[in-house]
Amino acid sequence: MKPILPKGTRDYSPIEVSRRNYMKEKIKLSYQKYGFEPIETPSFEKLEILKGNYSEEGDRLIFKILNSGEKLKKADIQSLKSNKISQFSSSISEKALRYDLTIPFARYVSKNQNEINFPFKRYQIQPVWRADRPQYGRFQEFIQCDADIIGSNSLLLEVDLILLCTEVFKKLGLEFITIKINHRKILYDISKKIGFKNNFKDFTTILDKFNKIGSKGVIDLLRKENISSSKLSDLKYLLTLDGSNEFKLKSISKFLGLSFSENIGLNDIDKILKNKFIQSSVDFKIDFDLTLARGLDYYTGSIFEISCSKNDGIGSIGGGGRYDNLASTFGLKNMSGVGISLGFDRIYLLMDELDLFPEFLSITTQVLIANFGTETEQTCMDLLKKLRSKEIRSEFYPDFIRINNQLSYADKKNIPYVIMIGKNELESKVFLLKDLKKREQSSHSINEILSVINKKIG
Amino acid sequence: MKPILPKGTRDYSPIEVSRRNYMKEKIKLSYQKYGFEPIETPSFEKLEILKGNYSEEGDRLIFKILNSGEKLKKADIQSLKSNKISQFSSSISEKALRYDLTIPFARYVSKNQNEINFPFKRYQIQPVWRADRPQYGRFQEFIQCDADIIGSNSLLLEVDLILLCTEVFKKLGLEFITIKINHRKILYDISKKIGFKNNFKDFTTILDKFNKIGSKGVIDLLRKENISSSKLSDLKYLLTLDGSNEFKLKSISKFLGLSFSENIGLNDIDKILKNKFIQSSVDFKIDFDLTLARGLDYYTGSIFEISCSKNDGIGSIGGGGRYDNLASTFGLKNMSGVGISLGFDRIYLLMDELDLFPEFLSITTQVLIANFGTETEQTCMDLLKKLRSKEIRSEFYPDFIRINNQLSYADKKNIPYVIMIGKNELESKVFLLKDLKKREQSSHSINEILSVINKKIG
Repeated sequence: MKPILPKGTRDYSPIEVSRRNYMKEKIKLSYQKYGFEPIETPSFEKLEILKGNYSEEGDRLIFKILNSGEKLKKADIQSLKSNKISQFSSSISEKALRYDLTIPFARYVSKNQNEINFPFKRYQIQPVWRADRPQYGRFQEFIQCDADIIGSNSLLLEVDLILLCTEVFKKLGLEFITIKINHRKILYDISKKIGFKNNFKDFTTILDKFNKIGSKGVIDLLRKENISSSKLSDLKYLLTLDGSNEFKLKSISKFLGLSFSENIGLNDIDKILKNKFIQSSVDFKIDFDLTLARGLDYYTGSIFEISCSKNDGIGSIGGGGRYDNLASTFGLKNMSGVGISLGFDRIYLLMDELDLFPEFLSITTQVLIANFGTETEQTCMDLLKKLRSKEIRSEFYPDFIRINNQLSYADKKNIPYVIMIGKNELESKVFLLKDLKKREQSSHSINEILSVINKKIG
Repeated sequence: MKPILPKGTRDYSPIEVSRRNYMKEKIKLSYQKYGFEPIETPSFEKLEILKGNYSEEGDRLIFKILNSGEKLKKADIQSLKSNKISQFSSSISEKALRYDLTIPFARYVSKNQNEINFPFKRYQIQPVWRADRPQYGRFQEFIQCDADIIGSNSLLLEVDLILLCTEVFKKLGLEFITIKINHRKILYDISKKIGFKNNFKDFTTILDKFNKIGSKGVIDLLRKENISSSKLSDLKYLLTLDGSNEFKLKSISKFLGLSFSENIGLNDIDKILKNKFIQSSVDFKIDFDLTLARGLDYYTGSIFEISCSKNDGIGSIGGGGRYDNLASTFGLKNMSGVGISLGFDRIYLLMDELDLFPEFLSITTQVLIANFGTETEQTCMDLLKKLRSKEIRSEFYPDFIRINNQLSYADKKNIPYVIMIGKNELESKVFLLKDLKKREQSSHSINEILSVINKKIG
């Protein structure tokens, strides 16, 4: 049988896991520093909890879990025959792998509303699954790192989330970060102003294609919705506007015929951008971007997207926004929430490309004791026990094979120190310590050897 | 829509995640200390990789993932109609959630054999999924913590794995641990000696029921396999034997008519138990137990099972063993491996029941700055920034609501310190620091307050 992987999934080698854990730890510490508490939710949820939240496209990409045993007999063969695939799959599947962490979070909050202390600041770092076509930076299994606050409308939270992003990227050593910001209420008023008649959802779906099809493509799609040419040319002007954030906001205000205080979106964005702490977080570029729509249906207020100009090709490395009604789907009313989600795997790719992982992550075992056969086994095991009692990561080579092969094992595993206790050493009570990095060796008594290694390892 | 969970799955609250992370970290550090390197594999594998490894019963409990879209049209309706459920599900599913970490590990090793440095010591801490009937200590999603070495026959590895277990449980503060040990080659020779004709697999499957049906039940099942009464009474004697490990091994040797050197199982177990380091790991009880069979088909040598006598009802909290041919399923020959797998969720339950989690895990945010409205907002944010620059986990309450409600938020979140900067404080430049644990408060200048908090937090 061929040991192959399902498409869009990956194994992680020791060095990759070490680097991923390093990243995770930095993100965790940042989230905790900002007052967020961790939760985790199951990998799969009831299918009806997930469906209907991610736009039609998103719903199609949800991985469904097959019912087992007897339940499969309820398969709706009629719907299969009449090509109603979605109905057929619903008859044999009740659970699905989570598609994001936001819907499970909303479900969690509703389920545990009586125990939760609001406003609830939670973070969650877990994998999500999407049956998407794999490509560079896009996987079927990937990790999201979410921080959300639910139960407050305060704009201070948007500010804090942006500061949190600066914290994370600073800790990771990642520079040239841009946060794009927009607001669903601005987009909503624009859709009304140009006379878009359909669901507002459809407007954001069209706008969301901007990155792929450009302003011309978007305008063409809107033309099919019977928007007048003059409105379309106004919109095109706004979508392609260059200049400061303030200039852009004022242009929109003018187009809408609404002052900042008359459109909550303009007002929010203006306040966020003018916040002193946002202004002083110089490492970051914060761009108001009217073309930003976000693909997810649940956003109602501010929306964000994060990218790194060192690698635009990788797409967004994070995003988020405010949602006013998410928990109400599950019976919890009047709970506004706002959050960000960082794309762990893309950030990993970036850091790897930019060589931002520290060297020490490649060292796992610190000391190898070479194996010289049964006669010295006891002494070696004694020493091993002593090394480990000092919390030194160490191992005893399990087989008595040629020493060169043992050294080569140490070398490949990037083990910096090898201790040799052969028969001669046993008699003379002097052990050999090899420093594989410096390519030097020294002799020590057993008592000495521990303190020498401790010193070398620091 | 009701915010309910699929059966057998759980949400984890902030304190639970903190405790789980604490446990994970201790296990990780132990594994690393013993020279194991981390790998991770995808949550799902090709179905054919998983199937056929876990006994018939196990195979039925594998969660299958439904093919998506067009592929569903290949549903084999005929097999559904003729009640061939397994064939039907194979026609609409190609992937499945992993059932354990051992088979994905064997697949990983075969796939990456050219890059791997053998003997390969890997650890892996990831969830697995089983469509099992949920009960106390048994979930449909749970975490396994595996440490395996592949590429060496050395018995030193069995010894090292037992020592590793003592390390883990010591770090976790868990006592009253018993490791049961047995050997498939002993069981094999016994099955031959009593004249068991079927597959050896079937013998272990029967023996594996010992805990549920007792020696009488096992003997009854074997009687149906046409084993003679005299052999059955000999076997019953061996299965219910009391006494030292040495006495048990000698009794088996006598029954088999084989010396220790003539049965590799007896030889291995004897050597492991006589190892000086095993003998001196006094915290642990190590029991040779002939009734131990292990449900998994892939074991060929020593087998282990770990339990805690503080709670027998929870079942085994870990297990493992040696497998000689596992990787050969995927084309990699002559690679003996041995490993242990700790049941994270059961160990968690035990630790929780025994109150072994440290108190500090319940503190997330260390300092809350109360919100007194827009006039003092700037000063509060300034202070927040300073606290965070000292890596103090802190937050600014997002809304200007009644101070008592803000204090109650801090109290519920177990935040030990609250700083108050009202209008009066702003004018006098003296801020109030409340210590919620000690129920006392003190006044400080802004410069002072940082060092006071730093001191309190330690």
